[in-house]
Amino acid sequence: MEGAGQRGRFIAIEGIDGAGKGVQSRALVDWLRRLPLEVLHTREPGGAPGAEEIRQLLVTGAAARWDSMTELLLVYAARRNHLTQTIWPALAQGQWVVSDRFADSSRAFQGVAGGLGLAVVEQMHALVVGDFAPDLTIVLDLDPAVALARTERRGGAEDRFEKKGLSYQTRVREGFRELALRSPQTHLLIDAAQSMEQVTSALLEAVAERLQLQQERA
Amino acid sequence: MEGAGQRGRFIAIEGIDGAGKGVQSRALVDWLRRLPLEVLHTREPGGAPGAEEIRQLLVTGAAARWDSMTELLLVYAARRNHLTQTIWPALAQGQWVVSDRFADSSRAFQGVAGGLGLAVVEQMHALVVGDFAPDLTIVLDLDPAVALARTERRGGAEDRFEKKGLSYQTRVREGFRELALRSPQTHLLIDAAQSMEQVTSALLEAVAERLQLQQERA
Repeated sequence: MEGAGQRGRFIAIEGIDGAGKGVQSRALVDWLRRLPLEVLHTREPGGAPGAEEIRQLLVTGAAARWDSMTELLLVYAARRNHLTQTIWPALAQGQWVVSDRFADSSRAFQGVAGGLGLAVVEQMHALVVGDFAPDLTIVLDLDPAVALARTERRGGAEDRFEKKGLSYQTRVREGFRELALRSPQTHLLIDAAQSMEQVTSALLEAVAERLQLQQERA
Repeated sequence: MEGAGQRGRFIAIEGIDGAGKGVQSRALVDWLRRLPLEVLHTREPGGAPGAEEIRQLLVTGAAARWDSMTELLLVYAARRNHLTQTIWPALAQGQWVVSDRFADSSRAFQGVAGGLGLAVVEQMHALVVGDFAPDLTIVLDLDPAVALARTERRGGAEDRFEKKGLSYQTRVREGFRELALRSPQTHLLIDAAQSMEQVTSALLEAVAERLQLQQERA
Protein backbone atom coordinates (compact mmCIF):
# COMPACT_ATOMS: atom_id res chain seq x y z
CA MET A 1 0.00 0.00 0.00
CA GLU A 2 1.15 3.55 -0.56
CA GLY A 3 2.92 5.03 2.45
CA ALA A 4 4.32 1.71 3.69
CA GLY A 5 8.00 1.02 4.38
CA GLN A 6 10.40 3.73 5.63
CA ARG A 7 7.91 6.31 6.69
CA GLY A 8 6.59 8.67 9.34
CA ARG A 9 3.86 7.76 11.80
CA PHE A 10 0.18 8.57 11.42
CA ILE A 11 -1.89 9.68 14.43
CA ALA A 12 -5.65 10.31 14.27
CA ILE A 13 -7.54 12.35 16.89
CA GLU A 14 -11.18 11.36 17.24
CA GLY A 15 -14.20 12.34 19.33
CA ILE A 16 -17.59 14.03 19.10
CA ASP A 17 -17.95 17.70 18.15
CA GLY A 18 -16.80 19.87 21.07
CA ALA A 19 -14.61 17.18 22.66
CA GLY A 20 -11.52 19.37 22.19
CA LYS A 21 -9.90 17.77 19.15
CA GLY A 22 -8.67 21.10 17.75
CA VAL A 23 -6.95 22.28 20.95
CA GLN A 24 -5.48 18.90 21.80
CA SER A 25 -4.22 18.10 18.32
CA ARG A 26 -2.46 21.48 18.16
CA ALA A 27 -0.82 20.72 21.52
CA LEU A 28 0.28 17.30 20.24
CA VAL A 29 1.64 18.74 16.98
CA ASP A 30 3.58 21.47 18.86
CA TRP A 31 5.08 18.88 21.20
CA LEU A 32 6.08 16.53 18.36
CA ARG A 33 7.71 19.43 16.49
CA ARG A 34 9.78 20.31 19.55
CA LEU A 35 11.23 16.75 19.73
CA PRO A 36 11.98 17.73 16.84
CA LEU A 37 9.92 15.86 14.25
CA GLU A 38 8.57 17.11 10.94
CA VAL A 39 4.80 17.04 11.37
CA LEU A 40 1.93 17.65 8.95
CA HIS A 41 -1.27 18.72 10.73
CA THR A 42 -4.42 17.99 8.73
CA ARG A 43 -8.13 17.25 9.15
CA GLU A 44 -11.11 15.31 7.78
CA PRO A 45 -13.31 15.64 5.94
CA GLY A 46 -10.88 17.80 3.94
CA GLY A 47 -7.10 18.11 4.03
CA ALA A 48 -6.67 18.47 0.26
CA PRO A 49 -8.26 20.95 -2.20
CA GLY A 50 -10.74 18.46 -3.71
CA ALA A 51 -11.56 16.96 -0.33
CA GLU A 52 -12.30 20.43 1.08
CA GLU A 53 -14.85 20.95 -1.73
CA ILE A 54 -16.50 17.65 -0.80
CA ARG A 55 -16.47 18.77 2.86
CA GLN A 56 -18.68 21.72 1.92
CA LEU A 57 -21.34 19.29 0.67
CA LEU A 58 -21.14 17.37 3.96
CA VAL A 59 -21.21 20.13 6.56
CA THR A 60 -23.76 22.49 4.96
CA GLY A 61 -27.49 22.13 4.34
CA ALA A 62 -30.28 20.33 6.19
CA ALA A 63 -29.42 17.51 8.61
CA ALA A 64 -31.46 15.04 6.51
CA ARG A 65 -29.90 16.18 3.21
CA TRP A 66 -27.94 12.94 2.69
CA ASP A 67 -28.82 9.48 3.96
CA SER A 68 -26.09 7.62 5.89
CA MET A 69 -24.90 5.68 2.82
CA THR A 70 -24.56 8.81 0.68
CA GLU A 71 -22.74 10.48 3.58
CA LEU A 72 -20.37 7.49 3.80
CA LEU A 73 -19.62 7.68 0.06
CA LEU A 74 -18.89 11.41 0.23
CA VAL A 75 -16.70 10.95 3.32
CA TYR A 76 -14.72 8.18 1.62
CA ALA A 77 -14.38 10.22 -1.59
CA ALA A 78 -12.87 13.03 0.51
CA ARG A 79 -10.70 10.51 2.41
CA ARG A 80 -9.37 8.92 -0.77
CA ASN A 81 -8.43 12.38 -2.10
CA HIS A 82 -6.86 13.31 1.27
CA LEU A 83 -4.81 10.09 1.36
CA THR A 84 -3.55 10.25 -2.24
CA GLN A 85 -2.86 14.00 -2.28
CA THR A 86 -1.72 14.71 1.27
CA ILE A 87 -1.28 11.86 3.78
CA TRP A 88 0.48 9.14 1.76
CA PRO A 89 2.97 11.54 0.10
CA ALA A 90 3.84 13.09 3.50
CA LEU A 91 4.34 9.71 5.21
CA ALA A 92 6.45 8.49 2.28
CA GLN A 93 8.72 11.52 2.76
CA GLY A 94 9.21 10.56 6.41
CA GLN A 95 6.90 13.22 7.88
CA TRP A 96 4.62 12.47 10.80
CA VAL A 97 0.95 13.18 10.15
CA VAL A 98 -1.65 14.21 12.75
CA SER A 99 -5.24 14.27 11.45
CA ASP A 100 -8.29 15.66 13.26
CA ARG A 101 -10.64 12.73 12.44
CA PHE A 102 -10.02 9.72 10.22
CA ALA A 103 -11.75 6.37 9.61
CA ASP A 104 -13.11 5.87 13.15
CA SER A 105 -15.33 8.92 12.51
CA SER A 106 -16.99 7.01 9.64
CA ARG A 107 -17.41 3.97 11.88
CA ALA A 108 -18.92 6.03 14.74
CA PHE A 109 -21.00 8.54 12.70
CA GLN A 110 -22.29 6.56 9.72
CA GLY A 111 -21.73 3.01 11.01
CA VAL A 112 -23.00 3.26 14.61
CA ALA A 113 -25.05 6.48 14.94
CA GLY A 114 -26.22 6.52 11.31
CA GLY A 115 -27.34 2.89 11.45
CA LEU A 116 -25.34 1.45 8.51
CA GLY A 117 -23.56 -1.01 10.81
CA LEU A 118 -19.81 -1.44 11.24
CA ALA A 119 -19.62 -4.28 8.69
CA VAL A 120 -20.74 -1.98 5.85
CA VAL A 121 -18.18 0.67 6.81
CA GLU A 122 -15.43 -1.96 7.01
CA GLN A 123 -16.30 -3.21 3.50
CA MET A 124 -16.17 0.34 2.17
CA HIS A 125 -12.88 0.97 3.95
CA ALA A 126 -11.28 -2.20 2.55
CA LEU A 127 -12.43 -1.34 -0.98
CA VAL A 128 -11.21 2.27 -0.90
CA VAL A 129 -8.29 2.37 1.55
CA GLY A 130 -7.12 -1.25 1.81
CA ASP A 131 -5.39 -2.16 5.08
CA PHE A 132 -3.83 1.25 5.71
CA ALA A 133 -4.59 2.43 9.27
CA PRO A 134 -3.29 4.97 11.80
CA ASP A 135 -0.37 3.91 13.98
CA LEU A 136 -2.36 5.39 16.85
CA THR A 137 -5.92 6.66 17.24
CA ILE A 138 -6.62 8.95 20.19
CA VAL A 139 -10.27 9.17 21.26
CA LEU A 140 -11.24 12.20 23.35
CA ASP A 141 -14.21 10.92 25.36
CA LEU A 142 -16.78 13.45 26.56
CA ASP A 143 -20.47 13.61 27.49
CA PRO A 144 -22.26 15.24 24.50
CA ALA A 145 -24.17 17.61 26.83
CA VAL A 146 -20.85 18.96 28.15
CA ALA A 147 -19.43 19.13 24.62
CA LEU A 148 -22.48 21.05 23.39
CA ALA A 149 -22.14 23.60 26.20
CA ARG A 150 -18.46 24.08 25.28
CA THR A 151 -19.33 24.45 21.59
CA GLU A 152 -22.00 27.05 22.33
CA ARG A 153 -19.55 29.07 24.39
CA ARG A 154 -17.18 29.27 21.42
CA GLY A 155 -19.86 30.59 19.05
CA GLY A 156 -22.66 28.12 18.48
CA ALA A 157 -23.29 24.82 16.78
CA GLU A 158 -23.78 25.45 13.08
CA ASP A 159 -22.37 22.26 11.60
CA ARG A 160 -24.77 19.88 9.86
CA PHE A 161 -23.70 17.02 12.16
CA GLU A 162 -24.16 19.15 15.27
CA LYS A 163 -27.74 19.82 14.12
CA LYS A 164 -28.51 16.11 14.41
CA GLY A 165 -28.99 16.49 18.15
CA LEU A 166 -27.91 15.01 21.48
CA SER A 167 -29.21 11.46 21.07
CA TYR A 168 -27.30 11.15 17.78
CA GLN A 169 -24.14 12.56 19.41
CA THR A 170 -24.60 10.08 22.29
CA ARG A 171 -24.60 7.17 19.83
CA VAL A 172 -21.51 8.64 18.14
CA ARG A 173 -19.75 8.80 21.52
CA GLU A 174 -20.64 5.20 22.31
CA GLY A 175 -19.32 4.19 18.88
CA PHE A 176 -15.96 5.87 19.53
CA ARG A 177 -15.72 4.31 23.01
CA GLU A 178 -16.42 0.81 21.71
CA LEU A 179 -13.86 1.16 18.93
CA ALA A 180 -11.20 2.30 21.40
CA LEU A 181 -11.99 -0.34 23.99
CA ARG A 182 -11.96 -3.23 21.54
CA SER A 183 -8.54 -2.31 20.05
CA PRO A 184 -6.41 -1.14 23.00
CA GLN A 185 -3.18 -1.86 21.11
CA THR A 186 -3.95 0.81 18.48
CA HIS A 187 -6.21 3.19 20.44
CA LEU A 188 -5.95 5.54 23.43
CA LEU A 189 -9.16 6.53 25.24
CA ILE A 190 -8.67 9.87 27.02
CA ASP A 191 -11.15 11.36 29.51
CA ALA A 192 -11.84 14.80 27.99
CA ALA A 193 -13.97 16.01 30.92
CA GLN A 194 -10.78 17.05 32.72
CA SER A 195 -9.32 20.55 32.34
CA MET A 196 -7.69 21.32 29.00
CA GLU A 197 -4.23 21.18 30.64
CA GLN A 198 -4.94 17.84 32.30
CA VAL A 199 -6.16 16.37 29.01
CA THR A 200 -3.01 17.58 27.24
CA SER A 201 -0.75 16.09 29.92
CA ALA A 202 -2.53 12.74 29.85
CA LEU A 203 -2.45 12.69 26.07
CA LEU A 204 1.23 13.56 25.66
CA GLU A 205 2.30 11.12 28.36
CA ALA A 206 0.30 8.31 26.75
CA VAL A 207 1.57 9.10 23.25
CA ALA A 208 5.20 9.21 24.43
CA GLU A 209 4.85 5.83 26.08
CA ARG A 210 2.89 4.22 23.27
CA LEU A 211 5.12 5.42 20.45
CA GLN A 212 8.34 5.06 22.50
CA LEU A 213 9.36 8.58 21.62
CA GLN A 214 12.15 8.79 24.22
CA GLN A 215 13.90 5.91 22.47
CA GLU A 216 13.46 7.51 19.05
CA ARG A 217 15.08 10.69 20.30
CA ALA A 218 18.12 8.85 21.73
CA MET B 1 -35.13 -3.29 -2.09
CA GLU B 2 -36.93 0.02 -2.55
CA GLY B 3 -38.82 0.24 -5.81
CA ALA B 4 -39.67 -3.47 -6.00
CA GLY B 5 -43.20 -4.86 -6.35
CA GLN B 6 -46.00 -3.11 -8.33
CA ARG B 7 -43.95 -0.52 -10.13
CA GLY B 8 -43.00 1.18 -13.38
CA ARG B 9 -40.10 0.09 -15.55
CA PHE B 10 -36.62 1.56 -15.52
CA ILE B 11 -34.69 2.12 -18.76
CA ALA B 12 -31.09 3.37 -18.89
CA ILE B 13 -29.51 4.89 -22.02
CA GLU B 14 -25.75 4.46 -22.17
CA GLY B 15 -22.90 5.28 -24.52
CA ILE B 16 -19.83 7.51 -24.88
CA ASP B 17 -20.12 11.30 -24.99
CA GLY B 18 -21.52 12.33 -28.37
CA ALA B 19 -23.21 8.99 -29.10
CA GLY B 20 -26.62 10.69 -29.17
CA LYS B 21 -28.02 9.76 -25.75
CA GLY B 22 -29.82 13.10 -25.32
CA VAL B 23 -31.64 13.04 -28.68
CA GLN B 24 -32.52 9.35 -28.53
CA SER B 25 -33.69 9.36 -24.91
CA ARG B 26 -35.99 12.32 -25.67
CA ALA B 27 -37.43 10.39 -28.63
CA LEU B 28 -37.96 7.34 -26.42
CA VAL B 29 -39.62 9.38 -23.68
CA ASP B 30 -41.93 11.13 -26.16
CA TRP B 31 -42.93 7.79 -27.65
CA LEU B 32 -43.60 6.18 -24.25
CA ARG B 33 -45.72 9.18 -23.22
CA ARG B 34 -47.86 8.83 -26.35
CA LEU B 35 -48.68 5.20 -25.50
CA PRO B 36 -49.65 6.77 -22.95
CA LEU B 37 -47.36 6.07 -20.03
CA GLU B 38 -46.32 8.39 -17.22
CA VAL B 39 -42.56 8.83 -17.71
CA LEU B 40 -39.90 10.55 -15.64
CA HIS B 41 -36.86 11.59 -17.73
CA THR B 42 -33.70 11.99 -15.69
CA ARG B 43 -29.91 11.77 -15.99
CA GLU B 44 -26.68 10.81 -14.23
CA PRO B 45 -24.62 12.01 -12.59
CA GLY B 46 -27.41 14.20 -11.23
CA GLY B 47 -31.18 13.86 -11.30
CA ALA B 48 -31.75 15.20 -7.77
CA PRO B 49 -30.64 18.49 -6.16
CA GLY B 50 -27.84 16.97 -4.07
CA ALA B 51 -26.70 14.73 -6.91
CA GLU B 52 -26.50 17.73 -9.26
CA GLU B 53 -24.14 19.43 -6.77
CA ILE B 54 -21.95 16.32 -6.77
CA ARG B 55 -22.07 16.34 -10.60
CA GLN B 56 -20.40 19.75 -10.60
CA LEU B 57 -17.40 18.24 -8.78
CA LEU B 58 -17.20 15.46 -11.38
CA VAL B 59 -17.54 17.32 -14.68
CA THR B 60 -15.45 20.43 -13.92
CA GLY B 61 -11.74 20.88 -13.29
CA ALA B 62 -8.64 19.12 -14.59
CA ALA B 63 -8.97 15.63 -16.10
CA ALA B 64 -6.61 14.22 -13.43
CA ARG B 65 -8.40 16.00 -10.58
CA TRP B 66 -9.80 12.76 -9.08
CA ASP B 67 -8.33 9.28 -9.33
CA SER B 68 -10.67 6.53 -10.59
CA MET B 69 -11.61 5.36 -7.08
CA THR B 70 -12.51 8.88 -5.89
CA GLU B 71 -14.51 9.34 -9.09
CA LEU B 72 -16.34 6.05 -8.42
CA LEU B 73 -17.20 7.17 -4.86
CA LEU B 74 -18.54 10.53 -6.07
CA VAL B 75 -20.55 8.88 -8.85
CA TYR B 76 -22.08 6.41 -6.38
CA ALA B 77 -22.83 9.18 -3.87
CA ALA B 78 -24.72 10.99 -6.63
CA ARG B 79 -26.41 7.72 -7.71
CA ARG B 80 -27.54 6.90 -4.16
CA ASN B 81 -29.06 10.39 -3.84
CA HIS B 82 -30.68 10.06 -7.28
CA LEU B 83 -32.16 6.66 -6.41
CA THR B 84 -33.52 7.61 -2.98
CA GLN B 85 -34.81 11.06 -3.98
CA THR B 86 -35.98 10.53 -7.56
CA ILE B 87 -35.90 7.06 -9.16
CA TRP B 88 -37.23 4.79 -6.40
CA PRO B 89 -40.11 7.11 -5.43
CA ALA B 90 -41.16 7.47 -9.10
CA LEU B 91 -41.05 3.72 -9.77
CA ALA B 92 -42.98 3.03 -6.56
CA GLN B 93 -45.72 5.38 -7.82
CA GLY B 94 -45.96 3.37 -11.04
CA GLN B 95 -44.09 5.86 -13.24
CA TRP B 96 -41.66 4.70 -15.89
CA VAL B 97 -38.16 6.15 -15.57
CA VAL B 98 -35.70 6.82 -18.41
CA SER B 99 -32.21 7.84 -17.29
CA ASP B 100 -29.39 9.15 -19.48
CA ARG B 101 -26.60 7.00 -17.94
CA PHE B 102 -26.76 4.68 -14.95
CA ALA B 103 -24.52 1.96 -13.46
CA ASP B 104 -23.02 0.72 -16.76
CA SER B 105 -21.36 4.14 -17.06
CA SER B 106 -19.46 3.42 -13.81
CA ARG B 107 -18.50 -0.02 -15.11
CA ALA B 108 -17.28 1.38 -18.47
CA PHE B 109 -15.70 4.67 -17.27
CA GLN B 110 -14.17 3.84 -13.88
CA GLY B 111 -14.11 0.02 -14.12
CA VAL B 112 -12.80 -0.54 -17.67
CA ALA B 113 -11.31 2.76 -18.95
CA GLY B 114 -10.26 4.00 -15.49
CA GLY B 115 -8.54 0.72 -14.63
CA LEU B 116 -10.34 -0.16 -11.37
CA GLY B 117 -11.66 -3.42 -12.84
CA LEU B 118 -15.26 -4.56 -13.03
CA ALA B 119 -15.06 -6.56 -9.78
CA VAL B 120 -14.38 -3.40 -7.74
CA VAL B 121 -17.30 -1.59 -9.35
CA GLU B 122 -19.59 -4.58 -8.72
CA GLN B 123 -18.60 -4.63 -5.03
CA MET B 124 -19.34 -0.92 -4.74
CA HIS B 125 -22.66 -1.37 -6.54
CA ALA B 126 -23.74 -4.23 -4.27
CA LEU B 127 -22.83 -2.24 -1.16
CA VAL B 128 -24.63 0.95 -2.22
CA VAL B 129 -27.46 -0.13 -4.52
CA GLY B 130 -28.01 -3.82 -3.72
CA ASP B 131 -29.49 -5.88 -6.56
CA PHE B 132 -31.57 -3.08 -8.09
CA ALA B 133 -30.93 -2.84 -11.85
CA PRO B 134 -32.59 -1.36 -14.96
CA ASP B 135 -35.24 -3.47 -16.67
CA LEU B 136 -33.46 -2.55 -19.89
CA THR B 137 -30.14 -0.87 -20.71
CA ILE B 138 -29.78 0.59 -24.21
CA VAL B 139 -26.19 1.09 -25.40
CA LEU B 140 -25.69 3.54 -28.27
CA ASP B 141 -22.51 2.26 -29.90
CA LEU B 142 -20.37 4.74 -31.84
CA ASP B 143 -16.73 5.22 -32.85
CA PRO B 144 -15.27 7.90 -30.49
CA ALA B 145 -13.75 9.82 -33.43
CA VAL B 146 -17.22 10.17 -35.01
CA ALA B 147 -18.72 11.07 -31.63
CA LEU B 148 -16.06 13.74 -31.07
CA ALA B 149 -16.76 15.31 -34.48
CA ARG B 150 -20.49 15.45 -33.62
CA THR B 151 -19.76 16.94 -30.19
CA GLU B 152 -17.54 19.63 -31.69
CA ARG B 153 -20.25 20.56 -34.19
CA ARG B 154 -22.66 21.21 -31.34
CA GLY B 155 -20.26 23.53 -29.51
CA GLY B 156 -17.09 21.76 -28.42
CA ALA B 157 -15.94 19.26 -25.83
CA GLU B 158 -15.60 21.01 -22.51
CA ASP B 159 -16.55 18.25 -20.09
CA ARG B 160 -13.84 16.85 -17.79
CA PHE B 161 -14.41 13.32 -19.18
CA GLU B 162 -14.24 14.53 -22.77
CA LYS B 163 -10.83 16.05 -21.96
CA LYS B 164 -9.48 12.58 -21.21
CA GLY B 165 -9.00 11.98 -24.93
CA LEU B 166 -9.74 9.46 -27.68
CA SER B 167 -7.90 6.44 -26.32
CA TYR B 168 -9.80 6.76 -23.02
CA GLN B 169 -13.11 7.11 -24.90
CA THR B 170 -12.19 4.05 -26.99
CA ARG B 171 -11.76 1.97 -23.82
CA VAL B 172 -15.10 3.33 -22.53
CA ARG B 173 -16.78 2.25 -25.78
CA GLU B 174 -15.27 -1.24 -25.54
CA GLY B 175 -16.49 -1.45 -21.94
CA PHE B 176 -20.06 -0.60 -22.95
CA ARG B 177 -19.97 -3.09 -25.85
CA GLU B 178 -18.73 -5.92 -23.63
CA LEU B 179 -21.38 -5.24 -21.00
CA ALA B 180 -24.13 -5.28 -23.63
CA LEU B 181 -22.84 -8.38 -25.38
CA ARG B 182 -22.47 -10.44 -22.22
CA SER B 183 -26.02 -9.69 -20.97
CA PRO B 184 -28.24 -9.77 -24.08
CA GLN B 185 -31.35 -10.45 -21.99
CA THR B 186 -31.09 -7.06 -20.23
CA HIS B 187 -29.22 -5.01 -22.83
CA LEU B 188 -29.80 -3.66 -26.34
CA LEU B 189 -26.77 -2.69 -28.44
CA ILE B 190 -27.76 -0.12 -31.07
CA ASP B 191 -25.51 1.01 -33.94
CA ALA B 192 -25.43 4.78 -33.48
CA ALA B 193 -23.47 5.47 -36.67
CA GLN B 194 -26.76 5.42 -38.63
CA SER B 195 -28.76 8.60 -39.19
CA MET B 196 -30.58 10.00 -36.16
CA GLU B 197 -33.92 8.83 -37.60
CA GLN B 198 -32.64 5.33 -38.28
CA VAL B 199 -31.27 5.05 -34.73
CA THR B 200 -34.61 6.19 -33.30
CA SER B 201 -36.54 3.65 -35.40
CA ALA B 202 -34.24 0.81 -34.45
CA LEU B 203 -34.36 1.80 -30.80
CA LEU B 204 -38.16 2.13 -30.56
CA GLU B 205 -38.75 -1.11 -32.42
CA ALA B 206 -36.35 -2.99 -30.15
CA VAL B 207 -37.81 -1.46 -26.98
CA ALA B 208 -41.38 -2.28 -28.07
CA GLU B 209 -40.45 -5.90 -28.71
CA ARG B 210 -38.30 -6.31 -25.61
CA LEU B 211 -40.76 -4.75 -23.19
CA GLN B 212 -43.82 -6.20 -24.97
CA LEU B 213 -45.41 -2.78 -25.07
CA GLN B 214 -48.14 -3.74 -27.57
CA GLN B 215 -49.45 -6.29 -25.10
CA GLU B 216 -49.35 -3.75 -22.24
CA ARG B 217 -51.44 -1.32 -24.26
CA ALA B 218 -54.14 -3.92 -25.05
